[in-house]
Amino acid sequence: MPRNSDTRDRILEAGAGLFRRQGYEGTALKEIVDRGGAPWGSLYHFFPGGKQELGVLALRRSGERYRGLLELVFERSAEPSEAFRQFFVLSAAALEASDFADGCPIAAVALEAANTTEALRLVCAEVFESWLTTLTEALRDGGIERTVARRLAVFGLSTFEGAITLSRTLRNTEPLTDSAEIVAGIVRSAIDEVDGKRRP
Amino acid sequence: MPRNSDTRDRILEAGAGLFRRQGYEGTALKEIVDRGGAPWGSLYHFFPGGKQELGVLALRRSGERYRGLLELVFERSAEPSEAFRQFFVLSAAALEASDFADGCPIAAVALEAANTTEALRLVCAEVFESWLTTLTEALRDGGIERTVARRLAVFGLSTFEGAITLSRTLRNTEPLTDSAEIVAGIVRSAIDEVDGKRRP
Repeated sequence: MPRNSDTRDRILEAGAGLFRRQGYEGTALKEIVDRGGAPWGSLYHFFPGGKQELGVLALRRSGERYRGLLELVFERSAEPSEAFRQFFVLSAAALEASDFADGCPIAAVALEAANTTEALRLVCAEVFESWLTTLTEALRDGGIERTVARRLAVFGLSTFEGAITLSRTLRNTEPLTDSAEIVAGIVRSAIDEVDGKRRP
Repeated sequence: MPRNSDTRDRILEAGAGLFRRQGYEGTALKEIVDRGGAPWGSLYHFFPGGKQELGVLALRRSGERYRGLLELVFERSAEPSEAFRQFFVLSAAALEASDFADGCPIAAVALEAANTTEALRLVCAEVFESWLTTLTEALRDGGIERTVARRLAVFGLSTFEGAITLSRTLRNTEPLTDSAEIVAGIVRSAIDEVDGKRRP
């Protein structure tokens, strides 16, 4: 017998995957439950707040998983500019492997919800801010001053999000691969500048 | 008596505005017709293909209008890096003036449709490509070689799209204003490099 938490997890995973690929409004609850292999009755048992509650929890879970990935890539990269390049390159590979379906888990819902569903906008904002904090801290660890680190994090995430939007729409990873080099170059210059100032 | 074309125009304008603010799936045909001040029966008279036909035509119209704006900003700017800065700054102002509603007229639908509705993905791709062509040509006019110009156009539009996504979600124009300076700097460097090579 599957445990209760397995069913709840499967519904959340199914919701997160569908919201990522086709947005929130175009995803029917029935589709989520079917894809999660869960009985229809379990939906309101686990999510008494219905679709909106499920949406908030699914986006938060996707956001936390991606934050973990960002940290991992920074840990494994020799320096921050290489980590930035990796995010773009890994996302290009994930997009191609999924036939241009698996982009950012947040952006589609964020654009639908920004002016319509405040609970969803808030969780999207919370996730983006958590990613910006992780990026900013990683740049700070590379020696970059806080204000500059925040600005580079905001710029890097902006470029990343837009490159995914264009790559998915054009069905071509050019936006991600082209932007990878430019963003990595900008981060590299900021770190070189710090290193230059450090030299006696 | 309003002419037929006025009613059709009002429906297209209403659709374009709603798709931009809340996406395609979350916008009901009834909402479009009401906002356009059009009788319900006129919808299928003007758009026998229903919502999808209306979506394609509304997105194409928004896309063409924006392409015209891009050209205008390039014409009025002393050089391409200044034009890039202007797009970001003008969009930040438009976002604030509309209480963070009026972002990119294409992106929300593009992310919903990329893997679900091929007719809509195709028109979004057509619009993005038309913008990339305009940006690439403007950079070429600034003396930048074709391959580099295309790469800068793709990078600039990526950053612009992502900065709008983040700004709308965070309800803060920081992503647009921070990215403006960095993108303008990158374009400026590319032009300086060309100018440097030109010097005897």
